[in-house]
Amino acid sequence: MRLTWDAAARDGAARAGTLRTAHGDVPTPTFMPVGTAGTVKAMTADAVRATGAGIVLGNTYHLMLRPGAERVAALGGLHRFMDWPGPILTDSGGFQVMSLSKLREIDAGGVTFQSHLDGSRHRLTPARAMDIQHKLDATITMVLDECTPWPATEEQAGASLALSMRWAAEARVAFVARPGYGLFGIVQGGTYPHLRAQSVEALTAIGFDGYAVGGLAVGEGQALMFATLDVTVPLLPGDAPRYLMGVGTPDDLVGAVTRGIDMFDCVIPTRAGRTARAFVPEGTLNLRNARHAGADVPLQDGCPCPACTRHSRAYLHHLFRAGEMLGPMLLTWHNLTYYQALMRGMRDAILDGRFAGHAAALRAGWRRPDETDDP
Amino acid sequence: MRLTWDAAARDGAARAGTLRTAHGDVPTPTFMPVGTAGTVKAMTADAVRATGAGIVLGNTYHLMLRPGAERVAALGGLHRFMDWPGPILTDSGGFQVMSLSKLREIDAGGVTFQSHLDGSRHRLTPARAMDIQHKLDATITMVLDECTPWPATEEQAGASLALSMRWAAEARVAFVARPGYGLFGIVQGGTYPHLRAQSVEALTAIGFDGYAVGGLAVGEGQALMFATLDVTVPLLPGDAPRYLMGVGTPDDLVGAVTRGIDMFDCVIPTRAGRTARAFVPEGTLNLRNARHAGADVPLQDGCPCPACTRHSRAYLHHLFRAGEMLGPMLLTWHNLTYYQALMRGMRDAILDGRFAGHAAALRAGWRRPDETDDP
Ligand SMILES: [Zn+2]
Ligand SMILES: [Zn+2]
Repeated sequence: MRLTWDAAARDGAARAGTLRTAHGDVPTPTFMPVGTAGTVKAMTADAVRATGAGIVLGNTYHLMLRPGAERVAALGGLHRFMDWPGPILTDSGGFQVMSLSKLREIDAGGVTFQSHLDGSRHRLTPARAMDIQHKLDATITMVLDECTPWPATEEQAGASLALSMRWAAEARVAFVARPGYGLFGIVQGGTYPHLRAQSVEALTAIGFDGYAVGGLAVGEGQALMFATLDVTVPLLPGDAPRYLMGVGTPDDLVGAVTRGIDMFDCVIPTRAGRTARAFVPEGTLNLRNARHAGADVPLQDGCPCPACTRHSRAYLHHLFRAGEMLGPMLLTWHNLTYYQALMRGMRDAILDGRFAGHAAALRAGWRRPDETDDP
Repeated sequence: MRLTWDAAARDGAARAGTLRTAHGDVPTPTFMPVGTAGTVKAMTADAVRATGAGIVLGNTYHLMLRPGAERVAALGGLHRFMDWPGPILTDSGGFQVMSLSKLREIDAGGVTFQSHLDGSRHRLTPARAMDIQHKLDATITMVLDECTPWPATEEQAGASLALSMRWAAEARVAFVARPGYGLFGIVQGGTYPHLRAQSVEALTAIGFDGYAVGGLAVGEGQALMFATLDVTVPLLPGDAPRYLMGVGTPDDLVGAVTRGIDMFDCVIPTRAGRTARAFVPEGTLNLRNARHAGADVPLQDGCPCPACTRHSRAYLHHLFRAGEMLGPMLLTWHNLTYYQALMRGMRDAILDGRFAGHAAALRAGWRRPDETDDP
């Protein structure tokens, strides 16, 4: 049995469905909290579950360097290591090699780099990326690709795409299939519609269990990102899950679900939580702001997270002012709860055939300047 | 109805009992986790409850400076602020004024100091310490005293004691009694038996709801601390709770319970947890130690905390090596769970009349050099 995605409903281009995996089912659209180094920062696995998350992401680059894929395998795999028996998607490591490592050198066969931790030399090839993710026991493995930078000329984007498609074919061969596990290809091509189309054609010819859209949210801005989705997503197979990598803000997620994306990951809710920024239906709040010092009201009415049910905005303000770890802990918990509720709300609206109105109401809520610290 | 303590059993000088307060009952002997600034560091209130803690401590010095006693009162008191409906004991602030503040000046009426946070000037008097703790809504209020430093000559210790006893009388007058709330006096006198006796006499003449032994664990060493308890505790009223302030290691707690102490607070388990040190029945482990990198075994067999039930020592090692917040979170949770289990184990042994053997077995366990990182 392969990893599959079943549609439950469509509303315009938006889709509700279920991702079925060896480690359980996940309703889509879904947001995957980022568990970079085998932990969603500032959260126990129980807390991540309590937010409603059904699948988390791990970073191959971080895990291959520390503690090492072989060590994770010896310890029973990433699920057991981090106490997450549910599905885990791991990236290929390629993106972080380019953004974090030292002295990286890319060639036709892969990328050689030095660890940002200790300077040790490593090589990542399409096959080695499969091997590492297999050892991590990733439910969903991502092919190694080159994330085309932005801006890129058409020639640069085309050359980068050609390399990524060759690597995708090599990854498909090297991937060891297991029931309920899957391999996703990654569409590149920058912001050039015909390159995106060429990428989709190459990947679907190879055949993957799901298709990611990569190379977005790298500086091109939301309008260009949505425009690229508009020309890319309709070309993807209708019966496979679609994953927009590294995106995004609540507004980004609504726009991408509108365009037919099923899966997301992003550090925004967790990173924002550690820096006192909270997502609420009115926009975003900066809990360090002095106007919250005496605010004896919940962060968000009706939110089931402990930041909202047990404490006041004034308490959260105090925790950040005092530099207490509980501030990041509670606000990460809240932001992930907000993101999960956002996804669930969109799913319900799709199932009910009222997605457009729901999306409009969400957007109207976020833009009340008297209620947000980021007007 | 006053705050009371009922004896359930005595075994030698060790006592098991129940502290009855406006905010609930607490079985003794009990260990109070330190919630300095309105949070037990790296723990949600739910997590603190899950460790078995029945009462927590707040620091008046920190809370009076940030967010301020008046603000906490306006927000409904410390119980509501920090989501701890159970009993809370607050110290008087005196100890931390002397150890943390700038330009402090002590006189017969109190102490004037500058905040270590912003240099603002404050004055703490016996009456103001009562007022602040009342505003915080402390279940147990501590009198303002001068913690006699160590070493101190007999003359210094005597003069310091005289001041503390005058302040204790002033505090008693200023304290606003409420049903189930209490005021504790603090025995000083350094390591001089006749001064300790003089202090007990002065305090019992004034009359308090409980008696703390202060001025210990300030550098005098365990032997002198126990010797001082040996001459002090037998003089204290048998029907009032006894609290040893700022103590200590598991071995200190066993020795002090042996000598008739009922209540403790200390930053050791929380601070150790943040620095990768774990308390286990075999002694203490440093989870940063390379020997734990591949250890696919629980931190402590049978411990109900999530660090032990969900993860391996190897995972905890990884978290500390990677600088992940979850390391301090899990290890604080474990250490507080260990401390609570230690207290419960001693209580059960006292109730069963087998305390001496139980204490000996605990000590024997902690001294197995092949099993501990701190032989
Ligand atoms: Zn919330
Ligand atoms: Zn434990």
